[in-house]
Amino acid sequence: MIRTIGFDADDTLWHNESIFDRAQQRYRQLLARYHPAAEVDRMLFKTEMRNLPLYGYGVKGFMLSTVESAIELTQGAISAQEIREIVALGQEMLAHPVELLPGVAEIVPLLARDYRLLLITKGDLHHQERKIAASSLARHFHAIEILSEKDGATYERVLRRHGVALEEFVMVGNSLKSDILPVLELGGAGVHIPYHITWKHEQMTKLPRAHARFRHVNRLADLPPLLPGL
Amino acid sequence: MIRTIGFDADDTLWHNESIFDRAQQRYRQLLARYHPAAEVDRMLFKTEMRNLPLYGYGVKGFMLSTVESAIELTQGAISAQEIREIVALGQEMLAHPVELLPGVAEIVPLLARDYRLLLITKGDLHHQERKIAASSLARHFHAIEILSEKDGATYERVLRRHGVALEEFVMVGNSLKSDILPVLELGGAGVHIPYHITWKHEQMTKLPRAHARFRHVNRLADLPPLLPGL
Repeated sequence: MIRTIGFDADDTLWHNESIFDRAQQRYRQLLARYHPAAEVDRMLFKTEMRNLPLYGYGVKGFMLSTVESAIELTQGAISAQEIREIVALGQEMLAHPVELLPGVAEIVPLLARDYRLLLITKGDLHHQERKIAASSLARHFHAIEILSEKDGATYERVLRRHGVALEEFVMVGNSLKSDILPVLELGGAGVHIPYHITWKHEQMTKLPRAHARFRHVNRLADLPPLLPGL
Repeated sequence: MIRTIGFDADDTLWHNESIFDRAQQRYRQLLARYHPAAEVDRMLFKTEMRNLPLYGYGVKGFMLSTVESAIELTQGAISAQEIREIVALGQEMLAHPVELLPGVAEIVPLLARDYRLLLITKGDLHHQERKIAASSLARHFHAIEILSEKDGATYERVLRRHGVALEEFVMVGNSLKSDILPVLELGGAGVHIPYHITWKHEQMTKLPRAHARFRHVNRLADLPPLLPGL
């Protein structure tokens, strides 16, 4: 019987990838006179992946990779003023208001009455804390865990810390790779709620095979009736 | 009687500010044909402080501020190649090996036999975790807490989480502002071990007044004999 629900934050409780997406559109426009969009995307993703071990996840690392990638794509021809615009794109992302996804403001408080809620998110500590504060959702959560990576080892550590048994735990999120698979592998339950955009790094071609403790729903409103069956 | 020791990490267990300092020296050299060193420093610090609410602490925020500040200082005259060099300075900082301070490798394991040790650090989650892993010190610590800010509220939360009573707690660190004063104000003990450089943002002109639970030592080796008297 489920007693504890883990919620991912970005693209599960509030919009995130759409903010990256809009920034990347403007980035492509800035570089359009040098390269077609596909080439800009390819180089940026390559730069992001090269820097990921050094930077980790989050907007600041993205910003640094957009600067580096723009210099490389233009072979140094880009002006300092254009680089300043690229930095400003990222600053706007960091200052962007938190926009809750449909149903979150109503359903999270309802679930908090019957279940212990954990917010389990990855990325930049400072930015995640600012978004959590801006969301006004913190008071519904028993604990907030901001991780640098979401894998089996980090989920185990978090669940041990809060004394949560895997048979009583379900993780809810938009990323099969980070939110669902590691938890299913440990023996917990997982409910996938996709967001309309998935960052290439989080994309998975294979869905989990039929699994007694895996569900897929299209909106948060479909979650509460599922819980007793997990 | 002290049972739990909180250790700051940067500039308490390993070198950090000296790495920033060397990077900033090279940054000044890069901009020397535009401005004298003092003006470069002034503008960079101003930019860092303006961006602190958005970026938080850590090298990535520093990198973004060095790029922004260089564009501003040169009124856009800096070349993309020079900006690439500035980004590379920061990448070297992130890749810099962890160098333990004198005595740390011997004294931390000794203290771990008699006390519960907490690592309490602030800054970038990903970079702090990488440094902790590289230090090989993690196994001596009961828990590792990476915070976005070190103030009374965050210390209270950490101590509550680990069931630590203030009368049994001492915090050890190089920053009076972040490591010592908030803990003394809560009623805990504090041992200040200065590092030879202090970031301007962490500088305090006033030392804590005479306080029964405050000590100042010059090196970690002087810590163990003090503990029974706190």
